[in-house]
Parts: sequence; C-alpha cells; structure tokens
Amino acid sequence: MPTVNARGNENQHVPVTAVIPPGIITPEVMIDVDVLDRNIARMASATLARGLRLRPHAKTHKVLEIAERQLAAGAVGLTVATIGEAEVFAKAGVRDIFIAYPLWVTAPRAERLRTLAESSSITVGVDSAESASFMGQNLGAAAGRISVLVELDSGHHRSGVHPDDAPAVARAAADVGLDVAGVFTFPGHSYAPGMPLAAVRQEDEALRRGADGLAAAGFPARTISGGSTPTALLEGETAATELRPGVYVFGDAQQLELGRCGTGDIALTVASTVVSHHRTEPGEPGRFIIDAGSKVLGSDRPAWASGYGRLLDHPDARITALSEHHATVEWPRGLPLPGRGDVLRVIPNHVCLTMNLVDEVAVVHQGAPAGRWTVAARGRNS
Amino acid sequence: MPTVNARGNENQHVPVTAVIPPGIITPEVMIDVDVLDRNIARMASATLARGLRLRPHAKTHKVLEIAERQLAAGAVGLTVATIGEAEVFAKAGVRDIFIAYPLWVTAPRAERLRTLAESSSITVGVDSAESASFMGQNLGAAAGRISVLVELDSGHHRSGVHPDDAPAVARAAADVGLDVAGVFTFPGHSYAPGMPLAAVRQEDEALRRGADGLAAAGFPARTISGGSTPTALLEGETAATELRPGVYVFGDAQQLELGRCGTGDIALTVASTVVSHHRTEPGEPGRFIIDAGSKVLGSDRPAWASGYGRLLDHPDARITALSEHHATVEWPRGLPLPGRGDVLRVIPNHVCLTMNLVDEVAVVHQGAPAGRWTVAARGRNS
Repeated sequence: MPTVNARGNENQHVPVTAVIPPGIITPEVMIDVDVLDRNIARMASATLARGLRLRPHAKTHKVLEIAERQLAAGAVGLTVATIGEAEVFAKAGVRDIFIAYPLWVTAPRAERLRTLAESSSITVGVDSAESASFMGQNLGAAAGRISVLVELDSGHHRSGVHPDDAPAVARAAADVGLDVAGVFTFPGHSYAPGMPLAAVRQEDEALRRGADGLAAAGFPARTISGGSTPTALLEGETAATELRPGVYVFGDAQQLELGRCGTGDIALTVASTVVSHHRTEPGEPGRFIIDAGSKVLGSDRPAWASGYGRLLDHPDARITALSEHHATVEWPRGLPLPGRGDVLRVIPNHVCLTMNLVDEVAVVHQGAPAGRWTVAARGRNS
Repeated sequence: MPTVNARGNENQHVPVTAVIPPGIITPEVMIDVDVLDRNIARMASATLARGLRLRPHAKTHKVLEIAERQLAAGAVGLTVATIGEAEVFAKAGVRDIFIAYPLWVTAPRAERLRTLAESSSITVGVDSAESASFMGQNLGAAAGRISVLVELDSGHHRSGVHPDDAPAVARAAADVGLDVAGVFTFPGHSYAPGMPLAAVRQEDEALRRGADGLAAAGFPARTISGGSTPTALLEGETAATELRPGVYVFGDAQQLELGRCGTGDIALTVASTVVSHHRTEPGEPGRFIIDAGSKVLGSDRPAWASGYGRLLDHPDARITALSEHHATVEWPRGLPLPGRGDVLRVIPNHVCLTMNLVDEVAVVHQGAPAGRWTVAARGRNS
C-alpha cells in the first residue's frame, strides 16, 4: 500500500514510498517538476515534428515559471482566456499573447487592450460582426495594433460562428481597422470517450472551410489555430498552423479516463489526509473521508467520469462524493483501509479549476521539496 | 426585459432598471447589502425566538465585514471549516470559533491551535477515538484549552460517528485532557427536494441520542449543535442548543430551487455580459453565451438542479452548460434575446464556491456602488 504515514513528524523518517515530501500541510497542490518538464518537452517536439506552432493555453496553470518553461521549449507565445490573464503574463515579459475569447470590448476593456499592445503583440477572438465593430469603435486609432482571429464553431456549440459566416465577421473587423489574422476554434466536444478522433476531423474541416472562406474574401489567414489536449497529439494532416493545448502540462483525471495520458504523465496531485473512516456493513466496500474537497479540487464531474477525481497510487479506488472540504473514497472490497492520518495523492478531474483555487503550489523534484510557485494569474476572470 | 445596456460608458445614463451599478467589469460578484442585512436579521431573530444560539458558518462568505454584521446581530461566535479560516477571523478579533471538521491534528496543526487558543475560545470537531488521542498527544499541556464536539452522522453519511459510538470518542478525548463540550452534526442530506423535513427529524434524533449517550457516560453536553440553511428556519421542538447555517446570508440557486428562499432573498449575484449569440434553427429555444463560467460561479450541479445557476431577472431562462469562462443560456422560445453587451445577473448554484473564487466583491446599496469587500479567508483550505 504505497501510502505514507504522516502522523506528526514521523513521515520524515518512515515513508514506504517517498511520495509526500516533508512540510506539506494538506490539502496542498503539488507539482512534480520532472513530469511537468517531460510533458512540456513532449508536446513541443510533437508539434514541431508536425510543422505546427505551439501556443499553450496558460489558463491551465496561470504560473509564470511554467510559462517560461513552455516558451523556452519553443512555444511561439501564450494563449489566455481573459484580459486580466494577458496583463499578468505581459507584465512578466511575454511578448505574443492570444486572448482566445469573444470579448465584448467596452471602453474600459479597450483601454486595457491598448496598454497591452504597447508591450506585446495582442490577438483577440471575435465571433460576430457586431462585436468586431464595437471593439473597433472603442479602440479607435489603436484598432490597427490589435489582431483578431475569427472564432469558428467546430461542433462544440459554445461560442464561434459557422465557418460560412466567418468572412462577414472578418469584413466587419477590417472595416473598423482591426488586423484580421485568421481563424481559431476549440474542439471542446473532444472531452468525451471516443470523441477525440471525430472532434479532430470536425475541427480540421471547420478550420479549412473557415480559412478558405476568409482567403476568398480577401483575408488570407496567417494563423489557423486549433487544438486541445485530447486532440493535439493525434497525428495526420491538418489545416491548422498552430495548436493551443493547455491541460497537457499536468494531465488530470479526465485525460486519464479518456486515455489521453497515463499515470506517469500526471504532474499535479493534491496531497490529502485521511481524516475519517465510515462504519460500513460486512461485504460493503470500505469508505473513508479525505480532507480535499471542491474548494481545492474543483467540482467538475462529466457524466462519463468515474467520480470526482482519482487516487494516483490506488487506481481501483473511486471518489464517489465531494463536499467543500470532504471527499468520500470508496475502497476496493477486502483491502485494508489506509489509516487515519495517511496522506494520499488525488488527481483532480480538471486541473484548470484546481490551479484557480490556490494562491501557491508546492514544487517537488525527485520526490523532494523544491520551493513554491505563485499562481500569478489566479482569479483573473475579467 | 430588465437588462441593462452596458456598452461602454452609456450604462451610466440609460439603465432601464438600475440593477448593474456603473464601474462593474464583468464577471463580477456583487453583494446587495440591503438584502444581506435583512437575511442576517431574519435568521438572528428566528433562532432567538426558538431560544437557540446562532453560530453562522463563515466558510460561506469568508468576509470580515459580514462576520461583524452576524456577530452584531447576536451570533455567539462563528463556525469555520479549517484552521486557516479560524486564523483569519481570530486575527480580526472573533473570540469564539468552532472548527466544524474532524481535524487530524499533526504537530504543526497542534501548534496553530495552541496559538489560536491564546486569543480565542476554540472548539474542534472529532469523530474517532484515534483522532482524539492523536490530537491530545500533539497538543500536550494545551489540550485543556481546546474543546471538542463529537461529530455525529445524522444521515448524510460523510464524516461523523453513529450516535451510539459518541461516548467512546468523548472518553478518548477526555482521557487526553481535551474539554468535551458536546455533539454536532451536519444534515447535508437536507440539500435535496423534499428532504429538509425528513433531514431535520433525523438530525434531531441523532443529536438527542448522541447527547443522551454522552450525559449517561458522564459528559453532559453544554453544546448540541446542528442546522443547515435548509433546516434552520424550520420550526418545532429540537434537541439542539445552537444552529450553524451558512448560505442564508446570500441565498443561492440551490436554496431557491429547494424552496428555502425567494428571489427577494438573493443577496449575491454575478454580473455577466452577453458575449455571443448561437445560430439556432427556427422553433428552437434561443441560446447565447455569457462571460461567467465555472471559474467564478463554481461548477456544483446537483442532479435535481435545473442547470448551473439561474438568472435573477429572468426566471424562465436556464443555464444549460458551463465551461471555465462561458455559460450557455437557453432562452424562452419566442422572446427576443438580450443583446450582445447586455449585463445579466447570475445566481450561482452554490455561493460558498463562488466566494472562494474571488479576492474581492463589489458591494451594492440601494442599487448604487458602496465599496468593495476583501474575501479575507479565500483559499484558506488548510
């Protein structure tokens, strides 16, 4: 049973497998920097080998030190979701940022975009002629310093236009002086069992059709941007010129259950203490409570998921219920329960939510503490 | 259509109903302080009328200014979920704090409890003889300055012991010098349609049985603590001497859909901008995207809920999907959609998660801006 007894100070001396470094006060987000670096290198070389640019989505980690590693490994810039995130990374010296969101650019937002464009190359998503015109109007003379990518709906049915409607949006953007750089899409429907292959085909079809339409309307696409973690490592022909995966840096229980990563690729876990045992009837599976709840794991739980996350060292355990500070773990029948005070490593379902819940993370290098990183863009929702 | 056009600066002049004060950059959590004060006063007088003490759960709001209002209205102290939350409120001068959690008190946690007990009366939850002994051992001579309440499982089946097992836990606590103050339970299974009445009966039965058992074992209960927002305002006989509701200060979509509050009791909403319209087929309900996602609303969604929250001013709309920065709103058939740039007020499903996502909130008084509050205990998970 590869758990660690963390009763008081004893855990500095008796770990069976040294997975929990000393000094961790649970619940605590831990980043295994060795796995992180391997994930960053693998995605960088895979996209390079396909001749694609890599623009990782930094909303996943929100950490300057991780962005630096991605850029050092060859990423052309970063993707973010909000102006606030762009501000954090631009201030830290990132010079090429795509805000992959159909912003409604009011006067105060226009002012912030103008300031960002003074230091960095800024691209913004747009998915209607109306929002393009409104953005241009509020940006005024600065419109020419902001590039836009027209967002396409490739089957996720969230934001984005039908590819056939992309030229009209591009025309409205150009009319107000914005630089039309191309198209982008997010194949979010790839986050389901069996979907990555279908989603990547739909993504490719939408990008190709959108880019062709733009070219025919006089806006040849410099950038054709796609990609999510489930689809980014799939091979084959693509219309895309760049990919924007985010979750690949850490992996999570969703990716694991979709078969898009293995347990050896999991770089982020939440150290959690067993605090309570359930009284169960003979023959029932064992159940206990750990001190990681929705306020550190996040409560995303797709219908196809096995539960509210997984335990890295106990693949047969299931997390069957989640409150703010409690997770209920169902343990395989017949196996002895971990003791109260034992520390387990939880893989959250969705790491983007986990990172947005904590101000700092503990960095682990070869099983030993290696400092702390600040989640610099945490909570920058606007 | 009581929405507000927030295009640029115009919204300072043209609101039809002045629900969104100027200066709000969406998504933004807004607290209506008038509704908040009414909710605080109502719960205070209802518990007083029943002869019960009120110890509100501050994990819901994590805000010093709100704790002050609760204490000024007669609360005897606060409930919190973690040592970190206790530290924030103790530092601000709160002198009576119950950490309603079965803590596993390692040496570092014992040190923090000792420090807390220097300034405040500190009570901690305990639900096993083993964790009581371990806590006492690490507290050493300070054990006598910490009180414990034995946690009972009243049907929620999370942490807590069967009431018949409470005396053994109390005995173990007393053996290591802890002050045994009584029992507590959380009827979390009251958060389901039709459950509040059944849950309150089970809660009462568990508290009565647990307290009787303790008394028979020589530990008469000074405190018999129960109560959740769905059950706290139910009337009738109770074994409890104090209640610990949390959500009542704000209300949320869960409470609304359970019938435990009305729209007039909703003190917290998230101002959100319409950023994208879906292309829908004739006859389909309209759909659009607003800029509040799981990173500001939280993604709790009980199976019985209508969706991922509600719109305060549009009771017939449904929030059918949620990503990190997008919510998909389904609009009643035949009604014109709100325009892009319109600002809507979202009621989150679970306000405790929403408050834990933001560092600050905008305070609104009689529809006008009234400053900002810091969410002082945000993220204090350990």
